[in-house]
Amino acid sequence: MSTWNIEYLKPTLLDPVPSDIAISRSQPPKDIEKVAAEIGVHPEELDLYGRKKAKVSLDILERLQNVQDGKYVVVAGITPTPLGEGKSTTTIGLVQALGAHLHKNVFACVRQPSQGPTFGIKGGAAGGGYSQVIPMEEFNLHLTGDIHAITAANNLLAAAIDARMFHEATQTDEALFNRLAPKNKKGTRPLTEIQLRRLDRLGFERVDDAEHLSVEQRNQFARLNIDPDTITWNRVLDTNDRFLRGIEIGLGKNEKGLTRKTQFDITVASELMAILALTTSLADMQQRIQRIVIGCDKAGKPVTADDVGVTDALTVLMRDTVRPNLMQTLEGTPVFVHAGPFANIAHGQSSILADRVALKLAGPEGFVITEAGFGADIGMEKFFNIKCRYSGLKPSAVVLVATVRALKMHGGGPSVVAGTPLKHEYLDENLPLVEGGCDSNLRKQIENANKFGIPVVLCVNKFSTDTDKELQLVIQKAKQYGAFDAVVSEHWAKGGSGAVDLATALVKATSGPAKPFKFLYDLDLSLEEKIATIAREIYGADGIELSEEAKTKLERYTQQGFGKLPICMAKTHLSLSSDPTKKGAPTGFTLPIRDVRASVGAGFIYPLVGEMTTMPGLNTRPCFYDITIDPVTEIIDGLF
Amino acid sequence: MSTWNIEYLKPTLLDPVPSDIAISRSQPPKDIEKVAAEIGVHPEELDLYGRKKAKVSLDILERLQNVQDGKYVVVAGITPTPLGEGKSTTTIGLVQALGAHLHKNVFACVRQPSQGPTFGIKGGAAGGGYSQVIPMEEFNLHLTGDIHAITAANNLLAAAIDARMFHEATQTDEALFNRLAPKNKKGTRPLTEIQLRRLDRLGFERVDDAEHLSVEQRNQFARLNIDPDTITWNRVLDTNDRFLRGIEIGLGKNEKGLTRKTQFDITVASELMAILALTTSLADMQQRIQRIVIGCDKAGKPVTADDVGVTDALTVLMRDTVRPNLMQTLEGTPVFVHAGPFANIAHGQSSILADRVALKLAGPEGFVITEAGFGADIGMEKFFNIKCRYSGLKPSAVVLVATVRALKMHGGGPSVVAGTPLKHEYLDENLPLVEGGCDSNLRKQIENANKFGIPVVLCVNKFSTDTDKELQLVIQKAKQYGAFDAVVSEHWAKGGSGAVDLATALVKATSGPAKPFKFLYDLDLSLEEKIATIAREIYGADGIELSEEAKTKLERYTQQGFGKLPICMAKTHLSLSSDPTKKGAPTGFTLPIRDVRASVGAGFIYPLVGEMTTMPGLNTRPCFYDITIDPVTEIIDGLF
Repeated sequence: MSTWNIEYLKPTLLDPVPSDIAISRSQPPKDIEKVAAEIGVHPEELDLYGRKKAKVSLDILERLQNVQDGKYVVVAGITPTPLGEGKSTTTIGLVQALGAHLHKNVFACVRQPSQGPTFGIKGGAAGGGYSQVIPMEEFNLHLTGDIHAITAANNLLAAAIDARMFHEATQTDEALFNRLAPKNKKGTRPLTEIQLRRLDRLGFERVDDAEHLSVEQRNQFARLNIDPDTITWNRVLDTNDRFLRGIEIGLGKNEKGLTRKTQFDITVASELMAILALTTSLADMQQRIQRIVIGCDKAGKPVTADDVGVTDALTVLMRDTVRPNLMQTLEGTPVFVHAGPFANIAHGQSSILADRVALKLAGPEGFVITEAGFGADIGMEKFFNIKCRYSGLKPSAVVLVATVRALKMHGGGPSVVAGTPLKHEYLDENLPLVEGGCDSNLRKQIENANKFGIPVVLCVNKFSTDTDKELQLVIQKAKQYGAFDAVVSEHWAKGGSGAVDLATALVKATSGPAKPFKFLYDLDLSLEEKIATIAREIYGADGIELSEEAKTKLERYTQQGFGKLPICMAKTHLSLSSDPTKKGAPTGFTLPIRDVRASVGAGFIYPLVGEMTTMPGLNTRPCFYDITIDPVTEIIDGLF
Repeated sequence: MSTWNIEYLKPTLLDPVPSDIAISRSQPPKDIEKVAAEIGVHPEELDLYGRKKAKVSLDILERLQNVQDGKYVVVAGITPTPLGEGKSTTTIGLVQALGAHLHKNVFACVRQPSQGPTFGIKGGAAGGGYSQVIPMEEFNLHLTGDIHAITAANNLLAAAIDARMFHEATQTDEALFNRLAPKNKKGTRPLTEIQLRRLDRLGFERVDDAEHLSVEQRNQFARLNIDPDTITWNRVLDTNDRFLRGIEIGLGKNEKGLTRKTQFDITVASELMAILALTTSLADMQQRIQRIVIGCDKAGKPVTADDVGVTDALTVLMRDTVRPNLMQTLEGTPVFVHAGPFANIAHGQSSILADRVALKLAGPEGFVITEAGFGADIGMEKFFNIKCRYSGLKPSAVVLVATVRALKMHGGGPSVVAGTPLKHEYLDENLPLVEGGCDSNLRKQIENANKFGIPVVLCVNKFSTDTDKELQLVIQKAKQYGAFDAVVSEHWAKGGSGAVDLATALVKATSGPAKPFKFLYDLDLSLEEKIATIAREIYGADGIELSEEAKTKLERYTQQGFGKLPICMAKTHLSLSSDPTKKGAPTGFTLPIRDVRASVGAGFIYPLVGEMTTMPGLNTRPCFYDITIDPVTEIIDGLF
């Protein structure tokens, strides 16, 4: 692969920096067809969705199978304040620097944002300032429909579960069997492939004609006997709707009193989103969907999506989602926007498929920069132990993002609360607070990265209130604690030109022979040992304490054959510990595991450390009050 | 406009006719870019969504404003059996005949199907046999995301309603006001445009700084005081999920006991879908959304989407939906697939915008064939009185679809039940039953069409069991009862070539000077009079009987200023009366109006005649058992 011949865009840098959407609007993007051609995507490998977005065919993986992958870099952060420390912005600024300024082949791979927060408190999520994915409104609205496809597929399974329980509750064995395996014109009862697979799982021989099944076999075939109290498959919507966090369904008069309490989650919390992010092909996705466990039957055996009969229907609904979505940065470099599993209960990473295609397109001298959600104790750990394990890809470096603001918080500064003004400690120079944060959280996060054998480049994401002394202190400390290099970056205010030092440091960190990458734990360990390893090694805990509920679940999952799965911790991102108020690098604590859940289709077990919200809400004045559209020019405003 | 230079596709006709999806798959479609170029859509007016679907810009309306519209033809049906009599198939067969065989410029405008039924009992909805929209799986799955956008917008409003009630219930007047109108850095409280509009509605002067509002004004501004019992805005999903027909929400522990009973509807039943179908521009859509009434406050005054603050956010989410979706028929002629409001409670028609753009592209010698859902007593009546009223378009002809099967049912034949074999009366020649159906339902539906001044061409959609004598009887009777012409059509088995006689008859019916089109009722009549007019004139009722509930609602809506809206009857499509078991043309009955609702944004009042389901369910063995996808070839099977 040669170096791409790209027309870079040159946004005019203004000071003060305008709003994100104003910046996005002021820089006309290239047609995405042009971007695709520039990076070597063939026309037949591209499906346009309008002029500025396209889906890219997975056939590229086959066409370029003999091309060596580019360097694979993950952007993670120290434990953030509730305001966020700019990982997405750094990811985009870094690729703009590597591409438009150092002329490397470089791809950013980022998550698709949920529309819930976009219309709630958070606004857009395409980076910020002069480091953005454009057009930002297309990025934030619908994209190519992947999240909508997940909503549709997720809810078809949910509807099928309740409908099946209803039909089982209201029909005789014979009626149920006769309806599930109706006679054809020849008078026989042929089963479909998905029904034959149920026979396989029941240990029955496959039959050409279900009429040949014994009465006992017919009943076992026809009755899933789902225990409603064990159902873990919730409905989803991509809307912040707190009133759906706890609901009772089946209150219609035709549902005959078969009510049930359940809940809606935000769509990105669907296991199907985690599957999309971890899958390696449409065939693999189909198999993962087949394995989804939706609950247990009354004998305690897992009931799967395949038992409910929907594997292929869900795969059909999600067919187009496997192809990564191509967009561009403000400086005209390529971006894949693909998948966005909820970091609260899933692994919070963009897709393996986007990374793979990007690594091939970038080629051996190129770079793929991908982002890990939340702090590095969660995002980076899951990136290595879950995502890289399933992908087989070897990372070359970690870019760790820190801000003086967050370091001061970790050093003992007052609470940082969204929506209220920052205290003076955060606006004036305060070296002791910075030092305290470096000696605790920064140190621990760097050490954590080094445990995987991967070099760390620290990026101090500069704010206008940071002083030179503060910035230099961070850099000196980062190097002292084991960072390969540490640099100050100003990509928010200056775009790629503000991140050239960071890009140069990264190029150095990844040159020479690849470092030996190692996982933190072996899959053959017991589930409990795997959880305890993460708690001790990454969080700094003395150990873990399992609730009774958690113990029971771990035993059940192990017994059901899910003991070899990796662990996806559901822990607050606001502390290395389970207590969001404990900043720095807490020690001397035991990590409490309240409960454990399984995403068998996605392929991980997720222990719950404290309460995890899976459905955000709307505040009193959601940002939709600020959103406007001119119906003639179609110009949207107020999306940040 | 000249005649299009189109490459027609020539599917190989097989006998017996294969499954719809096998036929669709056997005929490779043209790239939609090519179709667009053939019919005079300019490249900059086209947004591709993959290779076989595209959105078409409304700028065409301006570019072609001086072009005379084509002939505007609606396809309606006699009262159908539960199996359906082939209106969609006739629509597609007819355009294939007009285009590929008579070489006219011709567009079909059809509805986007809901995915709920596609995965439930019904399968695909793209026509059938050799008269289909292709590729049928793209037609049936996601399309370009319009329905998903409606789901997102509908549910944002629903979430905002409940969140607002929650915040009003849990905050003091002062806290609520301070949050809705927060102080900016200058210390003032500027309101956004949507908040200023609320001041307008409250009769207060607009203020630069909400600090200037009196305490009483602040409270009126901040408290919507929604009466939860009056909320008519439901949540929606495009899934057949019967357990969401009756639900209780707010059971989560953080919602503080503010529970409420409500329901989900299928997305196509959302008022936003009716708005999309009836709107004439993005600006008009924005105004309709603004007017949506979601319920009443505790003083009985209507509360609007604008009061809730979401008008522009919803318009932003629906921005792309206004552009019609271009696809093609099996013979390569153009099709717009756009909007699909639920015929049970809305008007059941594809969009005005698609029809308008198509009429301009087809030009004065061309044709636009659009379909009206349900029987003509509902579909055609609403097409004329609602859709044509809002569009200002003048229809040129009605194609009325009948089958020997349905006529026999109306003539006294035994019940036709989906999923059970047809009785022998329907398989053997039976002239008396056919005659009975012609003298009742067929006669009445033809007379109804003629009341609007529009010529009727009867299409007998031929089945293999129909005899020549039966078919000839229908044709003779149709002409006797006032049809301009009547012909037998075989488009299902033979595609466009099977509908050439129908197409020729239609060309004749629409040549010469346009017939004077008239509405059935004047908008200035009272709501009750308008309802009674439809009941008497179209259904053959002696009059109407209003329930107490209905009377109250009619009074309230009149008082609230909605009395000039047209009427959208929510009545069974299985009988001209309100009783689905009464076939033929019932007389001597009074139409009971159980309740009345208002879709103020869409722009109609809908009386409920009997129970109307707005959320279908899944049967014991939904069609997803038959759906398969090969993950390598991506070939989908089982979608009929």
